[in-house]
Amino acid sequence: MLQSCRRSLFGASTVFRASSSFQCLYTQSGRRTFATQLQADDATDPRLQAIDPSQLSISKTTTPKDLVPNEELVFGRTFTEWTASEGWLAPRITPYQNLSLDPATCVFHYAFEAFEGMKAYKDKSGNVRLFRPDRNMARLNKSVARIALPTFDGKALTELISKFTTLEERFIPSRLSARGYSLYLRPTMIGTQRTLGVGPPGSALLYVIASPVGPYYPTGFKAISLEATNYAVRAWPGGVGDKKLGANYAPCIVPQMQAAKRGFHQNLWLFEGPNGEEYVTEVGTMNLFAAIVNKEGKNELLTAPLDGTILEGVTRDSILALARERLQPEGWVVSEKKFTMQDLADAADEGRMIEVFGAGTAAVVSPIRNISWRNRLVECGLKQGEECGPITQRMKNWIEGIQYGEEAHPWSVKL
Amino acid sequence: MLQSCRRSLFGASTVFRASSSFQCLYTQSGRRTFATQLQADDATDPRLQAIDPSQLSISKTTTPKDLVPNEELVFGRTFTEWTASEGWLAPRITPYQNLSLDPATCVFHYAFEAFEGMKAYKDKSGNVRLFRPDRNMARLNKSVARIALPTFDGKALTELISKFTTLEERFIPSRLSARGYSLYLRPTMIGTQRTLGVGPPGSALLYVIASPVGPYYPTGFKAISLEATNYAVRAWPGGVGDKKLGANYAPCIVPQMQAAKRGFHQNLWLFEGPNGEEYVTEVGTMNLFAAIVNKEGKNELLTAPLDGTILEGVTRDSILALARERLQPEGWVVSEKKFTMQDLADAADEGRMIEVFGAGTAAVVSPIRNISWRNRLVECGLKQGEECGPITQRMKNWIEGIQYGEEAHPWSVKL
Repeated sequence: MLQSCRRSLFGASTVFRASSSFQCLYTQSGRRTFATQLQADDATDPRLQAIDPSQLSISKTTTPKDLVPNEELVFGRTFTEWTASEGWLAPRITPYQNLSLDPATCVFHYAFEAFEGMKAYKDKSGNVRLFRPDRNMARLNKSVARIALPTFDGKALTELISKFTTLEERFIPSRLSARGYSLYLRPTMIGTQRTLGVGPPGSALLYVIASPVGPYYPTGFKAISLEATNYAVRAWPGGVGDKKLGANYAPCIVPQMQAAKRGFHQNLWLFEGPNGEEYVTEVGTMNLFAAIVNKEGKNELLTAPLDGTILEGVTRDSILALARERLQPEGWVVSEKKFTMQDLADAADEGRMIEVFGAGTAAVVSPIRNISWRNRLVECGLKQGEECGPITQRMKNWIEGIQYGEEAHPWSVKL
Repeated sequence: MLQSCRRSLFGASTVFRASSSFQCLYTQSGRRTFATQLQADDATDPRLQAIDPSQLSISKTTTPKDLVPNEELVFGRTFTEWTASEGWLAPRITPYQNLSLDPATCVFHYAFEAFEGMKAYKDKSGNVRLFRPDRNMARLNKSVARIALPTFDGKALTELISKFTTLEERFIPSRLSARGYSLYLRPTMIGTQRTLGVGPPGSALLYVIASPVGPYYPTGFKAISLEATNYAVRAWPGGVGDKKLGANYAPCIVPQMQAAKRGFHQNLWLFEGPNGEEYVTEVGTMNLFAAIVNKEGKNELLTAPLDGTILEGVTRDSILALARERLQPEGWVVSEKKFTMQDLADAADEGRMIEVFGAGTAAVVSPIRNISWRNRLVECGLKQGEECGPITQRMKNWIEGIQYGEEAHPWSVKL
């Protein structure tokens, strides 16, 4: 099943060449390699040119952007930029510019695209820090390998991201009165071959863009309401729901909009088991955690297992690790296992519900007030007027403490 | 379940403006509409500007392309072009050019993209003809609605495609010694909003590109070998496998490459039922038909039903209609129903296999020699040296007869 396959790893274009770059691109592309498996390792074929940070060229903008007042930051709308290159040509940092692509480029037709979301933080001493970048690199390599895009050396890309982030350091808001200001980084890989043939892209582009962002909850936590979705399915065993592919996102919008129309902030993806069980998978673009008192009377922190149907969230993994380290000694059971909406409803009905929260890079944690399911509203443990449960709050404090360098921890990488 | 939802249908950009077009784009976008349902009708909100073919502007190239000798035609590599526009601005035909898009454009990150494949043919009298364009328009509308892109008036787009095709008529190869020459048309819609926020695109681009193509089997049919894929799953009930979305294509490449590495031309997607049944769904990028003698001793033409896991192929639908009209009177049973690899293996083992073929726009029909499944090779009825079964051949003749205007038929639309 996981036998090796022939895969082309042509040289990829750099972002901002003129449209005639396709000619160059093809002449640079006479190399091939053998990649392996549906899931690739974070590694480059030794016969191929790896990303070489020492070859980085930097072309600074002559019209630097004004800094945006922190209060006006909008998630994903203000950009600084960086571009990386090929199977792999010399990486470049250039001023932010449009991509010029043939309308027959395979990314427009067959969704050859994968991305990551990560952040750079500034600590009290003014140092810039990344949070677990190795995890983002490994996941992006898994994602791109699954759709026949070239893998890359994660350490090299992290080094380039570090250089880029340092260069754009002025765009990383300093910690003001509250944590939460950071530079959102979006590593993206797209297939750039000009062809309508359905096959592995002969060229690819890896680029990173950045956007300064403010706190997700600038005025404090606001618990959200979810609608459980059972009429549409996000992911399934043997599919690609565990990869951070563009393909997993566009199909999620209409169910989200339908939930919003009925007054819910996000939708919760269920997955129906062979006997009609409605397993809880993930929420909108976050993983989901539930804290309950289990039937044995113990406090238990639950999240769905990595069975191929949920995204392997970096925040999810961090929460699990911290829960095992810091909650288990307090008597908590920490479980990655399948659980159902019925399990949550039973916990709510029987007074065993503690709290529920989403987990992701954007908000770290996002408290959940209730879940609409089968014409009832499952309350998730928050009292009226309460916007956040204690475990959610502690997790946010622990993780942000590490991200902002207040707690020394190997997850926080100082640049 | 299929309640209406609020959806933005902003004005879409035209293809070839400079990068500053994003400013224009947003100012043109202050209109909203209510779209309905997960599956939309082929209709435009009456309060919105519909595509207006009478507003078409044509800007011809000053450097017309040399005609490519027919023998050298490569599928999807030689292009003429046309661009259509917005919720919906005046459509334009312009010389073929690159798209200039911000690297944060949502099509690069969340796969907001859907497309169609259709062809224009030249008949003996030199008339240009389309084949069932209403089907492509209806399907594209279903596809885009499912990913929160704007729907459009299918008749208006067909009219624009007709004008474009007529303008580029010299690129439609005349019928030479054999049928099979045509102009491949690729209507494509992409989300063009510049945002990393996961939500409905506020702008979109609808464009059509074209490529002259020669016969899929220039030297006559070549039967292909398939590998049944059971380790990866293409589609799922409640998913989007019945829509022509980019999202359905990139994840198919690695299993196809693995099949190719083991010497097979394409992979055959199976879907596991609740009791381990391995249902036959579709092959590579085609629908699949099997002709067998059923257990009652009758000739039966089988294809998987439209249960949401297979693409609603226009060729599939045409084959079913022709089979009901022309094979049923000969005693054939024509069935859209679930069937398994075991059913095919039993038919082969018991001498009841007649033939198997794929069906799609590119090849019309594609005869299949055998299918590798569970360490055996299921032979599909072709004798040694034989490249095509009689039903496959008749279907090709019937459909091409209609496509090339040799048989008068409402499916063939003369421009």
